[in-house]
Amino acid sequence: MHQYPPVIYELINKLAELPTIGPKTAERIVFMMLKKNHDDIATLGNNLIDLSRKIKRCSECYNFSETNPCHICKNKHRNQSMLCIVSEPQDLVAIERTGHFDGRYFVLNGTISTYHGTKPEDIRIPELVKYIKKNNHITEIILALDPNVEGETTAMYLIKHLSSLNKKISRLAKGLPVGADVEYADEVTLSAALDNRKEIS
Amino acid sequence: MHQYPPVIYELINKLAELPTIGPKTAERIVFMMLKKNHDDIATLGNNLIDLSRKIKRCSECYNFSETNPCHICKNKHRNQSMLCIVSEPQDLVAIERTGHFDGRYFVLNGTISTYHGTKPEDIRIPELVKYIKKNNHITEIILALDPNVEGETTAMYLIKHLSSLNKKISRLAKGLPVGADVEYADEVTLSAALDNRKEIS
Repeated sequence: MHQYPPVIYELINKLAELPTIGPKTAERIVFMMLKKNHDDIATLGNNLIDLSRKIKRCSECYNFSETNPCHICKNKHRNQSMLCIVSEPQDLVAIERTGHFDGRYFVLNGTISTYHGTKPEDIRIPELVKYIKKNNHITEIILALDPNVEGETTAMYLIKHLSSLNKKISRLAKGLPVGADVEYADEVTLSAALDNRKEIS
Repeated sequence: MHQYPPVIYELINKLAELPTIGPKTAERIVFMMLKKNHDDIATLGNNLIDLSRKIKRCSECYNFSETNPCHICKNKHRNQSMLCIVSEPQDLVAIERTGHFDGRYFVLNGTISTYHGTKPEDIRIPELVKYIKKNNHITEIILALDPNVEGETTAMYLIKHLSSLNKKISRLAKGLPVGADVEYADEVTLSAALDNRKEIS
């Protein structure tokens, strides 16, 4: 690699750290960019700088947003009695895409996982409890967690901890293929799972 | 995708245009970056802007370089009688990595390809002829082109057009597995191919 000019070498190393990109792909990307218009490279660079400056977490739901609160938390026309709990912002986007839910969200930032060593205190459970207590117009909490081991563990933990709040708690129907990710479900399956959500007795 | 904040949406689209990255991988990359330190994102952005500003083509060999001429063309200790012709800068780097060649290079910027519609006038053949005429200390020209259809076609074309210059013309030995790319050959195979280069009678 030391045969590359320093600026190329450094960029290849940085890109190779990103998911799914190894050093060889990073090389390909850099040389493809160099063959194209140099202005495009600068634009991409400025996009990244913009991203680092403009994107923050919404202080209500913890979704990524350019504004605080985010456009969902700000929108008073949405159903304020429904709260959908997701583990990641990408899951929120997947549910928004279905157009089947118009309530509010809360992003946990992960799931409880013995495998990855994520404990309940590593995700936003205290913030969630506080959020629900503050927003007492919430009547139903939908747990939209991945139907896999981590998602199930997290759901079980949440059901136990939220039951004292006396809210209706539901989960996405098991229309989702078990072992899959919310993020990758097709819109029809995800819509069906929302429609068939099951109340926890 | 319209559920994303504009700055995220734009970046995902830009990244999805890069080779080997589709829209889903672009999403993964953006969200992984957002979960990490925002300063890292800005650094990557600045690296790209640096790349667009600092990297130019060497006016001698057409390799990418921060200086003009590049460090290879500038280096008078290298063997000035040997010229190695490559199709892409990545091929040059692969050969430099072997440490088996200390002459100079010329980057063609592609190969002749009926499949991709690249004609002889689309690559730097006039510039190459001019370069060889100007540098009359060159005694041997090594064609380090990929041993595939495009590389063979380009080699044949070059042999025909450079023969009137009365230089020794050689090619990388067919120690390279046929169908492979120069860029991806391991250093031992590539070294052997350099050592066993075959003079064209």
